[in-house]
Amino acid sequence: MASAARSGPGRGAIPSSAYRAVDRPLREASTLPGPLFSNPAVYEREVEKLFRTSWQCIGREDEIPEPGSFRAVEVAGSGVLVVRNRRGELNAFHNVCRHRGTRLVEETEGKDLTRLLCPYHAWTYDLSGRLIGTPHMQDAKRFDRSEFGLHPVALESWRGFVFVNLSPRPQPLQKALGGLSARTANYPLEALRRTHRVVYEIAANWKLVVQNANECYHCPGIHPQLVKITPYRSGEEDLRDGPVFGGWMDFVDGVRAATLSGTTARAPFPGLSAEDLKRVYYYVLYPANFLSLFPEYVTFDWFVPLGPERTRLIFDVYVHKDESDPAKDAMEFWEMTNRQDWHICEMAHLGSKTAAYFQGRYSSEEEVVHLVDRYYLNRMGLTGRRRR
Amino acid sequence: MASAARSGPGRGAIPSSAYRAVDRPLREASTLPGPLFSNPAVYEREVEKLFRTSWQCIGREDEIPEPGSFRAVEVAGSGVLVVRNRRGELNAFHNVCRHRGTRLVEETEGKDLTRLLCPYHAWTYDLSGRLIGTPHMQDAKRFDRSEFGLHPVALESWRGFVFVNLSPRPQPLQKALGGLSARTANYPLEALRRTHRVVYEIAANWKLVVQNANECYHCPGIHPQLVKITPYRSGEEDLRDGPVFGGWMDFVDGVRAATLSGTTARAPFPGLSAEDLKRVYYYVLYPANFLSLFPEYVTFDWFVPLGPERTRLIFDVYVHKDESDPAKDAMEFWEMTNRQDWHICEMAHLGSKTAAYFQGRYSSEEEVVHLVDRYYLNRMGLTGRRRR
Amino acid sequence: MASAARSGPGRGAIPSSAYRAVDRPLREASTLPGPLFSNPAVYEREVEKLFRTSWQCIGREDEIPEPGSFRAVEVAGSGVLVVRNRRGELNAFHNVCRHRGTRLVEETEGKDLTRLLCPYHAWTYDLSGRLIGTPHMQDAKRFDRSEFGLHPVALESWRGFVFVNLSPRPQPLQKALGGLSARTANYPLEALRRTHRVVYEIAANWKLVVQNANECYHCPGIHPQLVKITPYRSGEEDLRDGPVFGGWMDFVDGVRAATLSGTTARAPFPGLSAEDLKRVYYYVLYPANFLSLFPEYVTFDWFVPLGPERTRLIFDVYVHKDESDPAKDAMEFWEMTNRQDWHICEMAHLGSKTAAYFQGRYSSEEEVVHLVDRYYLNRMGLTGRRRR
Repeated sequence: MASAARSGPGRGAIPSSAYRAVDRPLREASTLPGPLFSNPAVYEREVEKLFRTSWQCIGREDEIPEPGSFRAVEVAGSGVLVVRNRRGELNAFHNVCRHRGTRLVEETEGKDLTRLLCPYHAWTYDLSGRLIGTPHMQDAKRFDRSEFGLHPVALESWRGFVFVNLSPRPQPLQKALGGLSARTANYPLEALRRTHRVVYEIAANWKLVVQNANECYHCPGIHPQLVKITPYRSGEEDLRDGPVFGGWMDFVDGVRAATLSGTTARAPFPGLSAEDLKRVYYYVLYPANFLSLFPEYVTFDWFVPLGPERTRLIFDVYVHKDESDPAKDAMEFWEMTNRQDWHICEMAHLGSKTAAYFQGRYSSEEEVVHLVDRYYLNRMGLTGRRRR
Repeated sequence: MASAARSGPGRGAIPSSAYRAVDRPLREASTLPGPLFSNPAVYEREVEKLFRTSWQCIGREDEIPEPGSFRAVEVAGSGVLVVRNRRGELNAFHNVCRHRGTRLVEETEGKDLTRLLCPYHAWTYDLSGRLIGTPHMQDAKRFDRSEFGLHPVALESWRGFVFVNLSPRPQPLQKALGGLSARTANYPLEALRRTHRVVYEIAANWKLVVQNANECYHCPGIHPQLVKITPYRSGEEDLRDGPVFGGWMDFVDGVRAATLSGTTARAPFPGLSAEDLKRVYYYVLYPANFLSLFPEYVTFDWFVPLGPERTRLIFDVYVHKDESDPAKDAMEFWEMTNRQDWHICEMAHLGSKTAAYFQGRYSSEEEVVHLVDRYYLNRMGLTGRRRR
Repeated sequence: MASAARSGPGRGAIPSSAYRAVDRPLREASTLPGPLFSNPAVYEREVEKLFRTSWQCIGREDEIPEPGSFRAVEVAGSGVLVVRNRRGELNAFHNVCRHRGTRLVEETEGKDLTRLLCPYHAWTYDLSGRLIGTPHMQDAKRFDRSEFGLHPVALESWRGFVFVNLSPRPQPLQKALGGLSARTANYPLEALRRTHRVVYEIAANWKLVVQNANECYHCPGIHPQLVKITPYRSGEEDLRDGPVFGGWMDFVDGVRAATLSGTTARAPFPGLSAEDLKRVYYYVLYPANFLSLFPEYVTFDWFVPLGPERTRLIFDVYVHKDESDPAKDAMEFWEMTNRQDWHICEMAHLGSKTAAYFQGRYSSEEEVVHLVDRYYLNRMGLTGRRRR
């Protein structure tokens, strides 16, 4: 580390010693090497090693309520179709016809599908992905329809959240969630209703956006309104093994809601503990999601990398389904806070992509950033046992 | 094939077995591997092996009518200048001054040129490409103007259509056209007059656009108006050896024109047979042109790839020069039909570029697509004797 | 050369014989190979070998007048901050926080800075770049603030012009300027006042823009107004060793100013010789600057390559600080002349990037272009002793 830190700016490949300098106890560790934030080959590897093998939440079960309802989304460069079949089961498929590769469903959401008809040459699949119609294929030799069903995508639900995973053999979702289930047990996640959605595009590497979600070291300078309700050093981290990372922060006395006023007309969720009423929980589900729990609303972020230097972020606000107030005050608070974050992420990107940045040092307020950065290097096969 | 078809989605290089799976009889063959439709290196090879060595029609002789008339076009990344010289001959040159590489002529068409004067340093060429003026070059040693004429581009005309070929030693145009001359002998191609031109840009690989022109398997779903006048399984293929591929389709009884009404005020071309009056002929001149013959009008497409994921298409409508009706009804019919095609080509591109598509199977209605795909692999040196 | 000149258009790598063909006496030499003007790998090498190791003028001292004044610019892909410290000294730093790589200063100019506070996590530097504030870093082991000052950038001033150089060990500016100091001694460069700035973006390789500044062979065709006041073959080159190249041109009789009218209301600079009053001096400071001296005004160009096919140009007009007339007539004259140049540079780019251009020949009017092209190949390590 010391030599890397001392050396002047330079360009070129990242030596393995730089990764080892990250993979140390917090007090001795160096930060992620700057070239990781803009290198196109690194980005390709991230898509393969992280985004194509991780569970990502694509929405809520109640967005696909009935047989024939569907959502079509983009996951790590692949079109994915999530559809409820006639037995009421949710399935996910690659949104690609097996004949000539045409995107099957163009709409991003809808209902009342009875089958999946490719618009190009009318190859037809049932709602479970089985190929059931193939005009003019009777002469084809050794052509067995059962071999040409839609390519499935792993799908699991957790308390109303629908996750998909492009890996052919993913670990079970429950295992990936780890301690998150227990930590969020008090919250009525099954009973949420979405009231807002905002889509942002950020001119920054996705890792900078995730790092930003993982520390409040930046809050005094960046979020003057937020630190008034949750002091930046309050709380504790309680999930630190990955892929879920995070913990809670405490409201200051007299504050009961994460809004500009610190209060709200909404009742808290039923079932919360006295502790929960004074806390905000933030958990990253690495690499693509970020769940935030407040006493009477929930927010959910989906990070969608569009390239090494561009990230889309889909931000949702939920309230209890029996709550009539749509939490406009929460949306306004986070719209302000989000834009503060994206701007500083873009400034971080501008500097870290230059030859002048190689590695810095972590403060004691960046413990989770460091945990996530080590986890990242390990998943990428750049440190530890997974190294190749 | 079977194993490729059975395997799930993947990424990476294309094994040679995938090309061999295309290069089989239609009933056993697999379709072109998906990565061919978006890979930049494949695209570079296509430009070299196909677009820089094939005859491409850049327009009509009567667009360059007199000595000094010219057209400047882009062919496979090179500016090409087609100019009629003082003896009335058409010549084609690279539109690049031999001194410092400046584009010689900026206008895309014009007339009354007496010489080609480079605007930068006044090097001057006659209309046959000879270097005739070189200010301040008298001191240059071993500088022989005759070695610095404009680089010629092969040019040949066929019945009013002007073709160029960037290859230094192209096969004769007549040989490339093969059976097309005989098949089109009844049509007064010399006597055509252009009445419409539309330029489209399509977010799809050029091969998807050519494949689309090579089958009517998609017509029932994509072209409800077209199949009312020419049933999708009618007709026959009669040119199948390449680089020209195609055949005809039949009008349904009572239809005499490819228009929305099925009729027209225009008289048929003189000289057509009774058969021709009931037919529409479609011929691809691989890889860049598509000629369509109707009883009283002609359309011509020029496919111009702009990159692996973008194709420009210049679409012209012609009538007989003695016909006063400009065939607005034909243009309207094809404007509608073209847009139906480009949209489904874009859907095909979206799916086939993802990791979820590798190879499918051909139906019996895709015989010409299969012929063209095999021809493509052979010309690219990926199968057969030309393999390297 | 002869064989390269005779051969037809082709594509691919540049053989070393092509570089040797440039590296000959003017009368025998060939011009720079066309692929150098668009190849991305060549561009990357140019950034490393030329733009990151050369002195570049980023503005004038009086634009950063007082302690706490600053300018933030982009130099060869790196953000550079030039700031005057409390002792009144100008310093340059990479505009990048050493903690997590954030761009420190977002504004492009300003004043009254007392320290440099990173907006992200409040790491703080004094105006000499020393790290003086690091919240929550007390636990970090072997963390010595003195090792984490801002990365310095070499800075030197010359007669009011502020130059920076990204090289860690640059040659002294005075040595790089070579004979320029003596040639410009009559001109009151310390006493200039900027009255105009125009920023252009040119769709051409930066070398084409520099070549354009190095010859007047193009003036008869491109600049009819300019040749009326300074005949294109007048004058002489007097600096030819690099990195400064150039010389003078003579006014025709009766002309005393480089304006459309050939005259001006401004008095000439004090101290000019009778010769100077009849001359215009043009000097390229390779690769990024171009200084032009007129009897009563000065212009300065900063070439900023944005990629192999795009160049930004910042063009400034200066008069004597005691002159009240802002030289609008000069700005109008050069606005017209500049646009004539950028257009022909774009035409040169369009042709020289195609396979049809490889190498041409120099005229006797392109002596400085040839000198600069040889210097370029040498600095790039493509010819001569520096070859690798």
